[in-house]
Amino acid sequence: MRIKISLIATLLLASGCSSLVIQAPLPQASLIIKNGQIITMNGQKQLIDNGVVVINNDTIIAVGDQTLLSKYQATRIIDAQNGIVMPGMINTHNHLPMIAFRGLGEEGIENRLFAYFFPLESEKLSRELIYQATRLGAIDLAQSGVTTFADMYYHVDEMAKATKEVGLRAVLGETVIKFPVVDAKQPYGGLEYAQKFISDYKNDPLITPAFAPHAAYTVSKQKLQQISALSQQLDVPVLIHVGEFGNESGRINDNPKQLSPVAWLKDIGVLDKRMVLAHAIHVDQADIDLIKQSGAGVAYNPMANAKGATGIAPAWEMYQQQLPMGLGTDGPMSSNQVDLWRTLSYAANMQRLKHNDRTIMIPEQVIELATIGGARALHMDDKIGSLEIGKKADVIIVETQSANMMPNYNPYATLVYQANPSNVSTTIVNGNIVMEQRQMTQVDTADVTHHIRAIEADIAEFAKELAKKAITSPSLMK
Amino acid sequence: MRIKISLIATLLLASGCSSLVIQAPLPQASLIIKNGQIITMNGQKQLIDNGVVVINNDTIIAVGDQTLLSKYQATRIIDAQNGIVMPGMINTHNHLPMIAFRGLGEEGIENRLFAYFFPLESEKLSRELIYQATRLGAIDLAQSGVTTFADMYYHVDEMAKATKEVGLRAVLGETVIKFPVVDAKQPYGGLEYAQKFISDYKNDPLITPAFAPHAAYTVSKQKLQQISALSQQLDVPVLIHVGEFGNESGRINDNPKQLSPVAWLKDIGVLDKRMVLAHAIHVDQADIDLIKQSGAGVAYNPMANAKGATGIAPAWEMYQQQLPMGLGTDGPMSSNQVDLWRTLSYAANMQRLKHNDRTIMIPEQVIELATIGGARALHMDDKIGSLEIGKKADVIIVETQSANMMPNYNPYATLVYQANPSNVSTTIVNGNIVMEQRQMTQVDTADVTHHIRAIEADIAEFAKELAKKAITSPSLMK
Repeated sequence: MRIKISLIATLLLASGCSSLVIQAPLPQASLIIKNGQIITMNGQKQLIDNGVVVINNDTIIAVGDQTLLSKYQATRIIDAQNGIVMPGMINTHNHLPMIAFRGLGEEGIENRLFAYFFPLESEKLSRELIYQATRLGAIDLAQSGVTTFADMYYHVDEMAKATKEVGLRAVLGETVIKFPVVDAKQPYGGLEYAQKFISDYKNDPLITPAFAPHAAYTVSKQKLQQISALSQQLDVPVLIHVGEFGNESGRINDNPKQLSPVAWLKDIGVLDKRMVLAHAIHVDQADIDLIKQSGAGVAYNPMANAKGATGIAPAWEMYQQQLPMGLGTDGPMSSNQVDLWRTLSYAANMQRLKHNDRTIMIPEQVIELATIGGARALHMDDKIGSLEIGKKADVIIVETQSANMMPNYNPYATLVYQANPSNVSTTIVNGNIVMEQRQMTQVDTADVTHHIRAIEADIAEFAKELAKKAITSPSLMK
Repeated sequence: MRIKISLIATLLLASGCSSLVIQAPLPQASLIIKNGQIITMNGQKQLIDNGVVVINNDTIIAVGDQTLLSKYQATRIIDAQNGIVMPGMINTHNHLPMIAFRGLGEEGIENRLFAYFFPLESEKLSRELIYQATRLGAIDLAQSGVTTFADMYYHVDEMAKATKEVGLRAVLGETVIKFPVVDAKQPYGGLEYAQKFISDYKNDPLITPAFAPHAAYTVSKQKLQQISALSQQLDVPVLIHVGEFGNESGRINDNPKQLSPVAWLKDIGVLDKRMVLAHAIHVDQADIDLIKQSGAGVAYNPMANAKGATGIAPAWEMYQQQLPMGLGTDGPMSSNQVDLWRTLSYAANMQRLKHNDRTIMIPEQVIELATIGGARALHMDDKIGSLEIGKKADVIIVETQSANMMPNYNPYATLVYQANPSNVSTTIVNGNIVMEQRQMTQVDTADVTHHIRAIEADIAEFAKELAKKAITSPSLMK
């Protein structure tokens, strides 16, 4: 651009023009991405070939064609090399620190919850493990193009620290549950922990603090109502598991009418637009109507739900009825992957199997769920989920040069059915480049690996003891 | 090893030993892989930590612990750096050249077969496209750790040329079908084409030529019997689609008793141990019994079958009854990915959903299907599918240093649920390193990209015309 300005000045001088020409300086941008095939996910789902995204500080200030290149001067220009430029993906349901345990108890264990899950959480969870595991998980997320994740776990202040170190955006819900847990010796101790956390992080640019009452069957009516009132007062989200299992109604205390979990939440007055409902597998049309009326979001976890044999959520119905819905992986002991790439294909394919219809949940709709849909589910669509002026600059570049990305006739189909995490070349969050050419820019990955290897060795040793109490499924004995 | 020998000699001299010590030279190997976590997939499914695989020319000559390092001298040593060393994966069902068309017609098209599939095959298929597309597909396969693929397509001599150029192993079945096709103007012209191809490639070290009668409903009883007799005489496999759709019985000519496709094949005398049955979704226990008795192999394509909404094969039943069964992706217009990584997770998860049991089809069983199971399905388990002395050296190394591969408590679970294609660092076929540190060693990838981009541009233009005749599914109109 400087060259162009000089050229104009030279021409003006050469033409003998003596009048004073005042060249207004071009508006300043911090970062421009050019030569991209842009998936905007704006209201028209506009695609822009050979497009440009202009970012200043944390905000997208322009999205359009190549002519934008002559309208801004930028500190930094990234050439996307005909790669796909799209909104960062949003993982709407996770328990990220459990990445420290992923791969354990996968041998067909009948009593996996008691043999592995509970002993690991009671013996091995600590502030330090949660911090280190979140660092690993956030790197894994960033390297696969997830820029925002929503999580329900413990010691969420450690998670916030780790997430910010890597540079991601997160909605972090402190778990509230009727049992003593790692960060709360008293039942429901998470309630106090959450309030402190919310007060500390309320105005953080990357972290949205939240309450995470575990489920309707593990949190009392009175506590759910208290959380609901506090969430309204503090204006924070409420993350909760709903309809993951078919038998939840019967497990809810104080449910004399045996209402469905969704109907019960509505009945006790807590189902509202601040809620994010994880799973929603075992929900019927009446439940879907209630969710829609409430404005609550839904986190659809198709891969985890298949692996865990918990069922297929009525996601096609919820999508058609325009519920705010995004995709999630669930925790790393459930789906083992924290990125969304495989989940993209499950999001479509599970609905196709269920409805016996190969024409539904097309790639464009799946990418919608992974981006703006996720933002709507988390009630953050004013801020993230699409490449539009005024939105936060959460952007990823997916290269299209690798063998698995060729040909690329339809970028949505290329993303959903061909792409792998390693095709993400660059990840930008809040205007910061957190990964470039597959290299993390902020976090010390060698240090993370060092700590994770120590945790891995310790847990591997502990797991040998756990294996002795594990009961192998009879179906594997044949 | 030279150091060790010198040391012994020095010690012998130093000890004043005057007798003549004859040091037998160490046996020669062409390639040693050390520091691997070895998945052997031998009869005991032995795992060897810090293990060694010794290869000479095209053959595995030793598999064991570190002590092997002092027993062989090798021209080349690869340090697996604690990565997983395993048999190359086997994709038992594909139509690889359709990779040129992948991503087309994914917008929820009701008449996709007529709007896209048929016009593309009739207007755009050529010898040249089949050659170039196979090169691309074989690179994609090699980069994701597939060392052998079985395919049903046309101009298989071009496919053989391309496959050998990349360096992979393949079972290539020339399609025989009652319609005129790209390489046969007359109905069933593929029969003659196949015989020529079989005669040319019968003793090729990498290519196993085969007949590929399309299906029971597209090939006559008489032609199937002729193929069966020829396959016996020439000792080659017969690849066929069976039970992909629920209505195949009614579509078979000359099926007065309305037998199931499997029972009909048995009835006409062609179901034998040379057959490889692709899909086998719509099969019942009686069919499974017939397949088992015949010795035919089964290619289970769980991801393609989900995407195409054709159903979930009774793979858990077939596995438990020990049918020779492997995994396949189906063609790139069906599943869009040719590698097996996502298919690994679908292989387990679809059975878990179907049986409502999260303890079945555990990772070890899935890796079995992807390796020795695939070899059994293709009737090649005397040659490939496991790391054992005497087997052909088809080996891959999967690194365990990336964030998505940590932790690694159980290598089978790490592979099935965490790994991505890019974690494959090295691919060895028949003793040749065809990919090392993600770089192809034999094929000119830039030249392949150049040709594929030209094909892509031409087809993208043609596809604009096709889109005009495409009928969008009514379910997307809501």
